[in-house]
Amino acid sequence: MKISKLVAERTKEAPSDAKMMSHVLMLRAGYMKQVANGIFTLTSLGQKAALNIENIIREEMNNCDGQEVKFPVVMPKELWDLSGRYSSIGSEMVRFNDRANHPMLLGMTHEEASVHLAKNWVNSYNQLPFMIYQIQTKFRDEPRSRGGLIRVREFTMKDAYSFHETQEDLEKYYYEIHEAYERIYKRIGLRNVISVKSDTGMMGGSVAHEFMFLNHNGEDELVLCDECGYKANQEVAECIYESNKKEDLKTLELVDTGDAKEISEVCELLKIDATKCIKAVVFAVKKEDSVVVCFVRGDKEVNEAKLKKVCKKDIVPFDATNESGFCAGNIGPKDLNVNNCSVYFDLSLKDTYNMVTGANKEKFHLVNFNIERDYGKVDYYDLSKVQEGQLCPHCNKNKVKISNGVEIGNIFQLGTKYTKSMNMLVKTKEEKEINPIMGCYGIGVGRNLACVIEENYDEKGICMPLSIAPYKVHIVPLRFDDENVKNISSRLYEKLKTNKIETIIDDRDSMPGVKFADADLIGMPIRVVVSPRSLQNNQVEVKIRKTGETSIVDVEKAYDFIVDIISNNKEI
Amino acid sequence: MKISKLVAERTKEAPSDAKMMSHVLMLRAGYMKQVANGIFTLTSLGQKAALNIENIIREEMNNCDGQEVKFPVVMPKELWDLSGRYSSIGSEMVRFNDRANHPMLLGMTHEEASVHLAKNWVNSYNQLPFMIYQIQTKFRDEPRSRGGLIRVREFTMKDAYSFHETQEDLEKYYYEIHEAYERIYKRIGLRNVISVKSDTGMMGGSVAHEFMFLNHNGEDELVLCDECGYKANQEVAECIYESNKKEDLKTLELVDTGDAKEISEVCELLKIDATKCIKAVVFAVKKEDSVVVCFVRGDKEVNEAKLKKVCKKDIVPFDATNESGFCAGNIGPKDLNVNNCSVYFDLSLKDTYNMVTGANKEKFHLVNFNIERDYGKVDYYDLSKVQEGQLCPHCNKNKVKISNGVEIGNIFQLGTKYTKSMNMLVKTKEEKEINPIMGCYGIGVGRNLACVIEENYDEKGICMPLSIAPYKVHIVPLRFDDENVKNISSRLYEKLKTNKIETIIDDRDSMPGVKFADADLIGMPIRVVVSPRSLQNNQVEVKIRKTGETSIVDVEKAYDFIVDIISNNKEI
Repeated sequence: MKISKLVAERTKEAPSDAKMMSHVLMLRAGYMKQVANGIFTLTSLGQKAALNIENIIREEMNNCDGQEVKFPVVMPKELWDLSGRYSSIGSEMVRFNDRANHPMLLGMTHEEASVHLAKNWVNSYNQLPFMIYQIQTKFRDEPRSRGGLIRVREFTMKDAYSFHETQEDLEKYYYEIHEAYERIYKRIGLRNVISVKSDTGMMGGSVAHEFMFLNHNGEDELVLCDECGYKANQEVAECIYESNKKEDLKTLELVDTGDAKEISEVCELLKIDATKCIKAVVFAVKKEDSVVVCFVRGDKEVNEAKLKKVCKKDIVPFDATNESGFCAGNIGPKDLNVNNCSVYFDLSLKDTYNMVTGANKEKFHLVNFNIERDYGKVDYYDLSKVQEGQLCPHCNKNKVKISNGVEIGNIFQLGTKYTKSMNMLVKTKEEKEINPIMGCYGIGVGRNLACVIEENYDEKGICMPLSIAPYKVHIVPLRFDDENVKNISSRLYEKLKTNKIETIIDDRDSMPGVKFADADLIGMPIRVVVSPRSLQNNQVEVKIRKTGETSIVDVEKAYDFIVDIISNNKEI
Repeated sequence: MKISKLVAERTKEAPSDAKMMSHVLMLRAGYMKQVANGIFTLTSLGQKAALNIENIIREEMNNCDGQEVKFPVVMPKELWDLSGRYSSIGSEMVRFNDRANHPMLLGMTHEEASVHLAKNWVNSYNQLPFMIYQIQTKFRDEPRSRGGLIRVREFTMKDAYSFHETQEDLEKYYYEIHEAYERIYKRIGLRNVISVKSDTGMMGGSVAHEFMFLNHNGEDELVLCDECGYKANQEVAECIYESNKKEDLKTLELVDTGDAKEISEVCELLKIDATKCIKAVVFAVKKEDSVVVCFVRGDKEVNEAKLKKVCKKDIVPFDATNESGFCAGNIGPKDLNVNNCSVYFDLSLKDTYNMVTGANKEKFHLVNFNIERDYGKVDYYDLSKVQEGQLCPHCNKNKVKISNGVEIGNIFQLGTKYTKSMNMLVKTKEEKEINPIMGCYGIGVGRNLACVIEENYDEKGICMPLSIAPYKVHIVPLRFDDENVKNISSRLYEKLKTNKIETIIDDRDSMPGVKFADADLIGMPIRVVVSPRSLQNNQVEVKIRKTGETSIVDVEKAYDFIVDIISNNKEI
């Protein structure tokens, strides 16, 4: 590829809303261009890297006996009605009517399509297990796309579906895929990856894991125990509490707290710790005229995912103003008179004594509030986030730490949700009819590409790993107007090209500084500098982008030298 | 791949609406499964063949210095407003509002997206020419999907866009792509392909060619001259007429023709030839309360594409009943009193004498009608289809023949329609600002796969060409319960697999007849039969699916024998 023709807009600055370095660098180096909110065009730099990732994924899936298929992007409503997901999934799924006024949708995953494909074919346990997968464009109408390719609306994803006779067989295969995913991340150049237990969400099923790229900009919170190795997404991490010291129940008092509304203000005023407060967090139920109030200890945060599971409602945070019937800033369990309001208590409030809580009366709080005595017997649920320093829910000993991560893959044990609802039947050896047990396995290509860059850059630009680099070699002829430089560079370029080693040559009449800066920015792993000076000794300079390691090589040995680096597959 | 696990439903019969053999065979052999009208899932047999076609296309596009990019499937309305196509394209384009109520669309081609990508990057003639392409899923809401993958709503397409400084440069490149397309068809196993001049349709531009796979089931009509090599789509083929013998103008008569309404009935009644009649064909204008009447010679058919261009209206065939103001079956130019009606005359009516035409009066026709004398001076346009035996519009000598074809690729010289409307500017050497001239080049992957099968099958099933076969080798062990057969087959299977030669092994305990029938049906190019009998001589049978050529080969030489066939790349 001649750089003069490479359609890739390079810029000094990225848009100010680009915070993550992968976002900044992919825009600055011309790997992609934004078309709309969460929708990008990949240039050949971006697309060739994406294709390299796809091929690595494909190899690993084929190694797991996966069969590559292609499901449709556009599917009819009926297919999704069978599983009930047409109505259970919200506005992140695009729905439209076709010209015959038939309701259609843009698929985000293909559980229904995979059962549809295999259901008439399979009838005997002999045909199990099998796995089918595809690599395909998906559209998910994200409310908050961000971070370049990290969270987009349109993306390329590998989604795989396996079918098994027994749970045991699924678990064995699930573990194989887990290992394949680890190989994939390693091969594409991602090191900071862990797998954590996760929520099954809209997929259904019981067990699920997410692969997390550890990064402080990641949207997901992870709960990690260094001692026992416990790793879980905040969404599913259990809260464990040490029991509180028993106290004598003091007399309930109504106290004028004036304008103190936030927990911090109340604590300061009353000179108490946040752990002695009861915090009220209010949610509205979507499409219903009702609210949910969750009470947690003053130092805790509500975990929406947990609350959703317990209250079984689709909830969103709600601003509990006075107009909505609440006494804003003074909400408490006692005398809470709000229409269509359900109330939940977090486990952090169990066995608490003499707490401070809102009195549902403007400017007043209750002091020495004891739930059972002053409100009544309640059920406590695990509804809050695990905090750094809390006890590990697995070993119950060590204190956990919290890290952020970007989800770069997920695997689910789906059970029979889809095979049952779509009536997929298989005869066992004993001629018994069963619904096969499914697993599903996703990995996003673009997000992985972004994370690779997030892990592989320096102050000058991207350091593309050799395995996925769109071009392996970048030839920088200094003084392209010098006949000798031009000839030697062009000959090397042609030889590499002929031997299918993807190469860029900087054929511009630019200053060396510009050429070096561009080469550093786009970050191909092997750079060859051809200059009039080095050619005096009949030599060129070969430099590894990532390590900076530089070698002076005889012109006639340069090609072999490069091939050697590539075939030794050094981690560069 | 073990055939016991290959998710591919094989059936004896195809649905009765499947008429084309590729449709029948792709369903019967389990290459695909229908999900909705014009929407299919490809099984691994279909998808692996499609990927092989994609890779051949990719190689040829890269050979033409193409840069592979990826444009979004979902695009915002604004982008398509720039070219005016958001409103000019009809209901074949899917439009929907996203969750923020923003109008979006599913892209069918990417001229706008390609200009959007390159426009800020390019500024100098030095950067021209360049070509960008993608291989991507498209959705086109076809009113009449048919023929399996021949005409679908969702499909994978390679679309390429080139940008040039001069028309001359575009034409040179256009020709290069023409040659690349010819290589692609040859490589994937299509022989019966010609390129014809075609209509530019919704793309805009001046010159266009379609590549046509000649097939009697093809929807397109092609006009071919064996003598001079003229080849054109019926849509754009010009009609040439030999001049009529001059006649004396006879007296106009009003004749009672009773119930004779069709041209054939009138001709029979009056004992005249259809060439002596004027036929009226009526169209309604979409979204308007108006009609268009086209008069052609009785033996001719109206060419809608030509009429659309002349009347500049979006027209559809219309049933001209008495209720709609017409005198059905007796329509003629004279005294045609219908509201909002425009009238066009076909070239076939020029210099005609003493014709028969409807009198716009029930049961009456006019005889000895002479357009100029009895109606007035009119303009004649070329509005009808070329018929077999008409004069060739190019050499004006030979008589053309009409063939049917399936469009399997198209290339367009677009001009500056998009670069002008989207204000893409480039400075020439003389510092003059110009809009680059564009070409665009499309090829559908699935339709080509279907056509390959349409050309490569026999009474037993598909004969997949080696170049695109999903699996190159199909091992058929007879008596898989025989230890020796099983071992020899499995060893060969593993060796081929290890060496990345895609192979199917029939690991079932089925009867030989079933195994042979399945192997013939799915049609992998090389079949290896391992039987207890042949193993007595330590031999296996290697058979070429397409030619039936059979070789008996020593077990230990079988692998090399197969590799030899594959690497010699015989056209099998």
